[in-house]
Amino acid sequence: MDNDTLIMTMMFDFFGDLLTDKQREYYDLYHNEDLSLSEIAEKAGITRQGVYDIITRAEKSLVMMEQKTGVVRKWIDTRGALGRAEDTARQLLRSLGGDDESRALAEELVVALARIAEVE
Amino acid sequence: MDNDTLIMTMMFDFFGDLLTDKQREYYDLYHNEDLSLSEIAEKAGITRQGVYDIITRAEKSLVMMEQKTGVVRKWIDTRGALGRAEDTARQLLRSLGGDDESRALAEELVVALARIAEVE
Repeated sequence: MDNDTLIMTMMFDFFGDLLTDKQREYYDLYHNEDLSLSEIAEKAGITRQGVYDIITRAEKSLVMMEQKTGVVRKWIDTRGALGRAEDTARQLLRSLGGDDESRALAEELVVALARIAEVE
Repeated sequence: MDNDTLIMTMMFDFFGDLLTDKQREYYDLYHNEDLSLSEIAEKAGITRQGVYDIITRAEKSLVMMEQKTGVVRKWIDTRGALGRAEDTARQLLRSLGGDDESRALAEELVVALARIAEVE
């Protein structure tokens, strides 16, 4: 999954329930279930252009909600920080035995975790 | 700050920019700047009832957005988990010297952090 696709997927996961029922349904069929515009149009009994317009509005709405709230960006940042904290913890784990190094790493970890918890 | 106030504050932080300009402005003046309904009404040149209606709609809108997305609940949960991970890291730090215990704690920490990163 490339980065843009990941961000679109997370926007739909976070904000999908704020779309209208139709927007959510056609967006999901198109982006997640891989149906074509024509297939959705036939299923829904509307024109291909009508489906396209609804999905485009859904996409714009998701992008607007992310621009205004930054929820996806925040969550991606948090996960990145957690991944790095986990790397540090693993490094600490490998180092145990040599006590000075372990202590320095453990201190580093405590500071890193405190920083993550401060993210607003 | 009691728990309900914390949740309302976080909902406004996350979703405030999705309110209308008026909803956001009056909500902020009332809940964050501690102005009375009458003071806001005078400032805005509308009735006290008008201000009350707009703030009530803002509150309902914030609650609806949280019910549909669960963003605030998720963030509170993440912070709780991070706090506990930090406690574990501190415990590890205190324990260093006795190597067996340190190793067990460090392993526990790695598992805990991996779990946090999995939260969707």
